Amino acid sequence: MRLALSLAARGLGNVWPNPAVGCVIVNQGRIVGRGWTQPGGRPHAERRALDQAGAAARGATAYVTLEPCAHHGKTPPCAEGLVAAGVARVVSAMTDPDPRVAGRGHAMLRAAGVLVDEGVLEAEARALQAGFLSRIERGRPWVALKLASSFDGRIALANGESQWITGPEARARVHALRAKFDAVLVGGGTARADDPLLTVRGFRPLRQPVRVVASARLDLPRGRLAGSLDQAPLWLAHGAEAPQEARRFWQDLGAELIELPCDAGGLQAAPLLQALGARGLTRVFCEGGGQFAASLMRAGMVDELIGFTAGVGLGADARPALGALVLDRLTNAPRFDLVEVTRVGCDVMHRWRR
Amino acid sequence: MRLALSLAARGLGNVWPNPAVGCVIVNQGRIVGRGWTQPGGRPHAERRALDQAGAAARGATAYVTLEPCAHHGKTPPCAEGLVAAGVARVVSAMTDPDPRVAGRGHAMLRAAGVLVDEGVLEAEARALQAGFLSRIERGRPWVALKLASSFDGRIALANGESQWITGPEARARVHALRAKFDAVLVGGGTARADDPLLTVRGFRPLRQPVRVVASARLDLPRGRLAGSLDQAPLWLAHGAEAPQEARRFWQDLGAELIELPCDAGGLQAAPLLQALGARGLTRVFCEGGGQFAASLMRAGMVDELIGFTAGVGLGADARPALGALVLDRLTNAPRFDLVEVTRVGCDVMHRWRR
Repeated sequence: MRLALSLAARGLGNVWPNPAVGCVIVNQGRIVGRGWTQPGGRPHAERRALDQAGAAARGATAYVTLEPCAHHGKTPPCAEGLVAAGVARVVSAMTDPDPRVAGRGHAMLRAAGVLVDEGVLEAEARALQAGFLSRIERGRPWVALKLASSFDGRIALANGESQWITGPEARARVHALRAKFDAVLVGGGTARADDPLLTVRGFRPLRQPVRVVASARLDLPRGRLAGSLDQAPLWLAHGAEAPQEARRFWQDLGAELIELPCDAGGLQAAPLLQALGARGLTRVFCEGGGQFAASLMRAGMVDELIGFTAGVGLGADARPALGALVLDRLTNAPRFDLVEVTRVGCDVMHRWRR
Repeated sequence: MRLALSLAARGLGNVWPNPAVGCVIVNQGRIVGRGWTQPGGRPHAERRALDQAGAAARGATAYVTLEPCAHHGKTPPCAEGLVAAGVARVVSAMTDPDPRVAGRGHAMLRAAGVLVDEGVLEAEARALQAGFLSRIERGRPWVALKLASSFDGRIALANGESQWITGPEARARVHALRAKFDAVLVGGGTARADDPLLTVRGFRPLRQPVRVVASARLDLPRGRLAGSLDQAPLWLAHGAEAPQEARRFWQDLGAELIELPCDAGGLQAAPLLQALGARGLTRVFCEGGGQFAASLMRAGMVDELIGFTAGVGLGADARPALGALVLDRLTNAPRFDLVEVTRVGCDVMHRWRR
């Protein structure tokens, strides 16, 4: 199952709206098939592993990180495929919460005489599937917030200068992280300040993440971002007040527009993330800026923090990594648990989960 | 020599104004004596190791982390002691830059027919002796700045609430760090906000560090700090404008007053640290607050950063760990190299050196 989980992780960022699943088929102590969900979500992991195993699947045990699907979608159900291949036993990490499956995959296997064990390494599988589970159970993607800052929590000088605070290894790591998410999300402030490409660069990803920019008035620079529609999808979330001219400009370039409710602080975080979930996104990587990150944090919508801390001091007059949270008590502050801490080049990387 | 260096480290914080030295005596492959500088700076490491070795020192090799002393101070010179004990060879990590020694220890040994090898693990020895070297070569102590903050670099809410941001393990680690420094240093703002004890608590240190508070006007709370003069020394650095009444109050309690020049930002960092060096301090642990830390940083007087980062977000309206630095370009920002990063309880600890 640990091997199946590590295979499943290969799909993260490439398979939305589907879950990233891994499958290992073992016959008499030999691994005869390995598979993981392919880019775009198909073929499924079980189909790949069964194809690899061929006749060796007969009488074998299949380890799957998620309950095999039971419904006829664009492909026949995997539960049927496992039965047809003659698999004798299925070990599954967890039930698929998708209402089209929800135990029916396991039941279909058992009805066909296949031995089924459930719940093996379930906690690890749930952690890996956090994005898919979030979309199914909460209707919104899992949100990781990146903060790359000086050791005193600053992302730019007062005059806006921000290149570079962290080193080249940390920046390369950010590109690798982008590739593991379905989408990269920034607020309008960052888009105006940096006109960033937000693509994965430096190596070839299987699939470029969707770029999502939240800008109530669609007052975005029309440079690099506008010139890169051929490189990766661009979704623009905006409010009712976005001018028609701006909407038409971005639509003509091929961007997808998403109109959403606003309040005094700009686009509301909850409807924004619900809209992204409804479009199938399971894992979103937010790269700022400070105001936008604070709006997500205030709404309780940050699930994971990924910090890069550089050995440089910028001072209290420099720009903060996180905007105002307006907390009256420390017990009300959002708390996260440390998952990982490591050196990346000359910087520190630390990951935390809610 | 590595063993001698680890013995030397035991003296850090306990031996000022002397260096923390380690000594290992080896005779025919057997360790016959081990010593390190004792609390208060005497006996010296060599004396302790020679006493332990006794007759076995004859014909032996002595490994010392610093050139043995050559001058008659309160004790006879160690170089003489090594010769008198019949040591055949001395391996030394580095020359003592103290003008009273400065090569004379090595010369005295050679003149007596002892074989001397110098410069073994010199870089490691210099790092360990950074405080003593700073006092001798720059006339001021080595300064480590502690920042215990939220992951967005905040040390308190806007209303001042700050207990607790980091967890109990990180706070215990801070007490252990205090014990390895000659003095703990804070600005007047922190003293007014927290009225801190600044002592080592939770275990029994060999010697309590000196507590140094920098307050131009001596407008300090007269509670816990004032009631703890029996627990550890208290030095108060102040400006000419400090009222006589306040001076008398603290003097009567047994505090040592140090009058220093001020500018618009309060006490000037350079004269303050020169004064501490002149009084013998070699290693100073600065625990804030933000304004005072920024004044040291602006003056280029921070040699080491020790960060504790908690998994909590406080927001841009909370109080910054570091005051304004007024930088116009990123290339002018103070840069530090990562020495160590580790998990401490639920927090991240990271150490950096200039």
